[in-house]
Amino acid sequence: MTRLLTDLPQPTAAALLDDDSVVVQPVGALEQHGAHLPLNTDLVVPDAIATAAVERVAAAGVDAWLLPPLAVSKSDEHHWAAGSIWLEASTLWDTLLDIGRSVAATGAGSLVFVNGHGGNTALLGVVNREIRRRHGLRTFSMGSGVQRAGDGVHGPDELGMGIHAGHSETSVMLALRPELVRMDAAVRSVPEHIAEYTTIGFNGYPVSFGWTSDDFGASGVIGDPTGATAEYGRVLVEEGTAFVARALTEISRFRHRG
Amino acid sequence: MTRLLTDLPQPTAAALLDDDSVVVQPVGALEQHGAHLPLNTDLVVPDAIATAAVERVAAAGVDAWLLPPLAVSKSDEHHWAAGSIWLEASTLWDTLLDIGRSVAATGAGSLVFVNGHGGNTALLGVVNREIRRRHGLRTFSMGSGVQRAGDGVHGPDELGMGIHAGHSETSVMLALRPELVRMDAAVRSVPEHIAEYTTIGFNGYPVSFGWTSDDFGASGVIGDPTGATAEYGRVLVEEGTAFVARALTEISRFRHRG
Amino acid sequence: MTRLLTDLPQPTAAALLDDDSVVVQPVGALEQHGAHLPLNTDLVVPDAIATAAVERVAAAGVDAWLLPPLAVSKSDEHHWAAGSIWLEASTLWDTLLDIGRSVAATGAGSLVFVNGHGGNTALLGVVNREIRRRHGLRTFSMGSGVQRAGDGVHGPDELGMGIHAGHSETSVMLALRPELVRMDAAVRSVPEHIAEYTTIGFNGYPVSFGWTSDDFGASGVIGDPTGATAEYGRVLVEEGTAFVARALTEISRFRHRG
Amino acid sequence: MTRLLTDLPQPTAAALLDDDSVVVQPVGALEQHGAHLPLNTDLVVPDAIATAAVERVAAAGVDAWLLPPLAVSKSDEHHWAAGSIWLEASTLWDTLLDIGRSVAATGAGSLVFVNGHGGNTALLGVVNREIRRRHGLRTFSMGSGVQRAGDGVHGPDELGMGIHAGHSETSVMLALRPELVRMDAAVRSVPEHIAEYTTIGFNGYPVSFGWTSDDFGASGVIGDPTGATAEYGRVLVEEGTAFVARALTEISRFRHRG
Amino acid sequence: MTRLLTDLPQPTAAALLDDDSVVVQPVGALEQHGAHLPLNTDLVVPDAIATAAVERVAAAGVDAWLLPPLAVSKSDEHHWAAGSIWLEASTLWDTLLDIGRSVAATGAGSLVFVNGHGGNTALLGVVNREIRRRHGLRTFSMGSGVQRAGDGVHGPDELGMGIHAGHSETSVMLALRPELVRMDAAVRSVPEHIAEYTTIGFNGYPVSFGWTSDDFGASGVIGDPTGATAEYGRVLVEEGTAFVARALTEISRFRHRG
Amino acid sequence: MTRLLTDLPQPTAAALLDDDSVVVQPVGALEQHGAHLPLNTDLVVPDAIATAAVERVAAAGVDAWLLPPLAVSKSDEHHWAAGSIWLEASTLWDTLLDIGRSVAATGAGSLVFVNGHGGNTALLGVVNREIRRRHGLRTFSMGSGVQRAGDGVHGPDELGMGIHAGHSETSVMLALRPELVRMDAAVRSVPEHIAEYTTIGFNGYPVSFGWTSDDFGASGVIGDPTGATAEYGRVLVEEGTAFVARALTEISRFRHRG
Repeated sequence: MTRLLTDLPQPTAAALLDDDSVVVQPVGALEQHGAHLPLNTDLVVPDAIATAAVERVAAAGVDAWLLPPLAVSKSDEHHWAAGSIWLEASTLWDTLLDIGRSVAATGAGSLVFVNGHGGNTALLGVVNREIRRRHGLRTFSMGSGVQRAGDGVHGPDELGMGIHAGHSETSVMLALRPELVRMDAAVRSVPEHIAEYTTIGFNGYPVSFGWTSDDFGASGVIGDPTGATAEYGRVLVEEGTAFVARALTEISRFRHRG
Repeated sequence: MTRLLTDLPQPTAAALLDDDSVVVQPVGALEQHGAHLPLNTDLVVPDAIATAAVERVAAAGVDAWLLPPLAVSKSDEHHWAAGSIWLEASTLWDTLLDIGRSVAATGAGSLVFVNGHGGNTALLGVVNREIRRRHGLRTFSMGSGVQRAGDGVHGPDELGMGIHAGHSETSVMLALRPELVRMDAAVRSVPEHIAEYTTIGFNGYPVSFGWTSDDFGASGVIGDPTGATAEYGRVLVEEGTAFVARALTEISRFRHRG
Repeated sequence: MTRLLTDLPQPTAAALLDDDSVVVQPVGALEQHGAHLPLNTDLVVPDAIATAAVERVAAAGVDAWLLPPLAVSKSDEHHWAAGSIWLEASTLWDTLLDIGRSVAATGAGSLVFVNGHGGNTALLGVVNREIRRRHGLRTFSMGSGVQRAGDGVHGPDELGMGIHAGHSETSVMLALRPELVRMDAAVRSVPEHIAEYTTIGFNGYPVSFGWTSDDFGASGVIGDPTGATAEYGRVLVEEGTAFVARALTEISRFRHRG
Repeated sequence: MTRLLTDLPQPTAAALLDDDSVVVQPVGALEQHGAHLPLNTDLVVPDAIATAAVERVAAAGVDAWLLPPLAVSKSDEHHWAAGSIWLEASTLWDTLLDIGRSVAATGAGSLVFVNGHGGNTALLGVVNREIRRRHGLRTFSMGSGVQRAGDGVHGPDELGMGIHAGHSETSVMLALRPELVRMDAAVRSVPEHIAEYTTIGFNGYPVSFGWTSDDFGASGVIGDPTGATAEYGRVLVEEGTAFVARALTEISRFRHRG
Repeated sequence: MTRLLTDLPQPTAAALLDDDSVVVQPVGALEQHGAHLPLNTDLVVPDAIATAAVERVAAAGVDAWLLPPLAVSKSDEHHWAAGSIWLEASTLWDTLLDIGRSVAATGAGSLVFVNGHGGNTALLGVVNREIRRRHGLRTFSMGSGVQRAGDGVHGPDELGMGIHAGHSETSVMLALRPELVRMDAAVRSVPEHIAEYTTIGFNGYPVSFGWTSDDFGASGVIGDPTGATAEYGRVLVEEGTAFVARALTEISRFRHRG
Repeated sequence: MTRLLTDLPQPTAAALLDDDSVVVQPVGALEQHGAHLPLNTDLVVPDAIATAAVERVAAAGVDAWLLPPLAVSKSDEHHWAAGSIWLEASTLWDTLLDIGRSVAATGAGSLVFVNGHGGNTALLGVVNREIRRRHGLRTFSMGSGVQRAGDGVHGPDELGMGIHAGHSETSVMLALRPELVRMDAAVRSVPEHIAEYTTIGFNGYPVSFGWTSDDFGASGVIGDPTGATAEYGRVLVEEGTAFVARALTEISRFRHRG
């Protein structure tokens, strides 16, 4: 049976959902991913992972339902690259709040954003609270769990910075949509001097910084896609699916007061 | 070859597009469609029609390209029905302007909204001008061409009001996604007294009026789906595809000053 | 007795209005109308027509009341012409919603926008629903009914495109305010090549398109005013008044559920 | 010759205006004025005064031009009274900025708001600067100069508080539109205890305070209209006209750097 | 005991406040004040005055409480001077409304803005009403009472225009923070030709006008600081404190209906 | 010498700043911190840490400058507690962008937000990019580095959740402002069941969730302040100062392209 909520007629959907239901909104993006990955990379991945994870947990009894992916989001760091289709922060904010309002009206208790684009992460953190305060929904956001920097063992050493069109993302696309990947156009583009800073960095550093993807070079890539393989991509897809599935399972029983 | 622009890497897409290019944005909706049609009816239909039409005209030499469909839009007339996922008018306005700004940056000369939901039509008319004034794109909007009221010959007489989940829309869904249609739940719901007014009506009348779909009854249907058939649906899909294809062909050569 | 609601003291007005009352808001515009018609053409016309129609139906027992005309509206298609005074779409949107909120508080059941400027039509369509959803008013919008393209019999052939400062509008102004019309400055400016498109056009075509009035030429005229006459204008004024009167009469008894 | 700018065709208007031109925008309001004055009092007065003043100074060689009055504005202090038609502060803000942008495009050097409603005064002060900073226009705002409290000599003693539907305003309406005034419904309503405060008050006090007109009583009147006369009204109309004329004359030669 | 409300734990603060409580929000600004006064002049002054006045009235039994000063506000007239930190009018509007909403939730009956920057005065007037209408608080705004033009007796003759970094303000800063004042950089900059206008002027004139501080000259000063003294400053600080204290005392017993 | 930029006159400040300059904006908050800590805890701490760190690095030759702290920010998770003074997300967004625009105009190359309130962290992440994209500034945000959960060795075991008014924050306030702390009112309030989730949590978990501080209990505390000491607080203050100083030093030489 389909887990796409919107495949159901309205009275059927409304009757199925209750406080234990978990509605999952994949959040995609359309933006430059170098010369070797398609513009829709960040739409393909979270949609695939979220769909697989929802089906997996639903089979195990979790009342989880998908919404169609949000295709466009806040790709303003790629605004310089013709072909990036991007929303202003305020537009994405309004969109997510409207979705939150709509989901709150269904009677479902939880809304989860499974996000394919790192540029949305912070905004989703703000939105989670806003929807909860306004509408009372339990709200959650997470990445699709397939992004990690190559460390010289699993792929080339990306110095902790394989965050955009690099080793892991390219591998995942080789696994999911190989016909859209042009490995001959893949180039290494790691802003190595950033690694010299001890407090400032992309992820896991105590200081956040503002950047657009042309700040570091003309390719738009931040990482090293040259050694990507479909085999490693399949490992990441399975790990991502397992992670999201585990998270959805916990979410389905999460209550703020225990 | 795919005509989905976002299947291409950014440099490839940017190199392909020029002033003769036509970018097509299907505009869907997620909203109640009675008890017999799924919530995503207005997403399924324009996406199918737009995709088929773009492929057809591209095969004939028109430089047309698809974007992924916008899944959610302004379904505020169905706000009362849990499961309708809808954007405020201002949110859709901002979203469409952001898309217009993004498409203008690609170098393509024309942007076309192929719209599956009547509740967006007026707003699209406003947006067309705004994008043109701000960004200089040639802008166009149209329905997907498959909606028409049953007249007693082709289907039951819907008195000109088969505008939502009625004869034509149900037939089209029987053609496109029969597994999502529940004909046993289909009911006739035509607000027959509206036909008595000579100046006021849904389409083609000189006086527009404000309404939400529960203004006319509890079913949310405006029309008579009971006689819908997949066969008639296939006729409408072909007619809609042919209409959009013809429009895209004209659009590709449309210039304001001839 | 005056039918201008705002000529009454507040307690008197509040006591008169009930669910059967129809409040009429003329919507004007201040914008270039070529070299022969004044900037306030689209304010003069709907105010005259709406006033005459309200008086006519009130005399026949319809509880209709006028508001002072909105002088400025969304003339963004004429932004290039110094002297056009225009509101952003969002400003007009907010203005109309504020008027809707205010009228809803009076106890009147219906609000009607009689609109003199085609550039407002789509936005009014969006507003009608928003006011109804937010405030519960019955809402309606219509043109003032005096615009029609010359067809070679009634005036020069405008190829269906006498939409701005053309034959009918110039004739109406010759009837209403002849001292403001400079027939010696009237020129024909019909974008004839637009008539070649079968799907795209100004009115009554399935494809809408974005345009500003300088897209078609430097005159700002879209039509052929050269043969306009006061006599034909008087016919149109009477027809427009009769049309609005008939519409108001229907509106006064219109109920969504019959 | 008419001084209504919008009575002119666009090319004529554009050719006439230059840096020495002064464009005058009357700002009206539609709001409760007790049981004896019409809702449009604050529209009638500034329109009459501004029109007379512009004609007077134009006859003396000042290049001043009128715009049609803004009928609706920020009457939020009368929101409780059905029949008050009022804009949110943000809507009026946007409206005035749009007018400022439009006037700046004409080539005129100065824009003047002649304001009939005290509730707009502060916002106009903010707007003046915003338009100047954004668009470079010289901007000015003033009241229509006919409001003053009765002092026991000229009319009843209003304790400095005849600010709404009181002695002066009622007299002016008796002069301008006597058929709309219902003296038999006029009542004294002066919030006398406010006069006890030495720092807080309506006008000319160092402390401003927030109020709505129902804060002081149910009548909506703040003042004493019972002794109003048309004769005194005519004096005030002449004084107001003379004041606005003198101000427009100064404005026409005002330059920030002398 | 501290009168800074935010020095208290939340339950303590909530328990103390009731309808008789007066919450005082100093409103500062960061903006050019010529070459002799620091950027934070308009923050230092109202904070000092408000703090002293609150302590004084609290000692006399008025239940007044301070909030930390708002450091940044609407200094758009100094936007041209690098180092001015300024909010858009809409940002300050939203900020003040958010503060009003928050204070209304405390149970305090009155909110007072003690404002150090003339550029905020008009906006505060608008805000007072908006907060009262939305939240029911009694709202007040005032300057800090230390600004007055030198008249040739008390300081140099500033022709009524010592409004920015002139005699009084410089004297006050010499009294409050002498180490931040550079008297050797003080220059007289009085736009003397403005005094020729009889209707138009900075304060107390019937016509308001839009200006930025570079409209009158390059120094950014409007006044004559050259003769400022700490001694006169101390007089002004005491007068300002006494004025605000008197106002707060009246505010604490102010009721709209007596 | 003071490092408060706004202690300087405008020409002095403008002359000092160049691309190597780092402007530091402390971001405070006013919100409930249980019954034992004052409402201004999150204002006191970042202001103290940022001031000390700026002075330290300035002494070492870094061209760092302070702005006055932003007192109020996005404390919406404490909206339920009277005395929390909080901005809507959109208001804080606008405020930070206005500050960014203002700082960009000074010529300084870098802007750093030192943030005392966790509820701002995500929004600051979004703002960093927006300011960089719009204005070209290098932008950074960080916490003040004094918050860490007690682990049973350093203080009571807070299960990784001492995030609000807990062990570390209370200790820091005992070090900085002991007179404002009421240890007798301190209570342990750790939502222990949250620790059972492996994917969902406050910090450092892959799934973010929406919450308000009353979701977990009535005290508003999330942590265990009962064992807090001034001694430990002094250690944290020094560590926080050292961290911010190290970060500012790196920021002063940070360049996106190395």
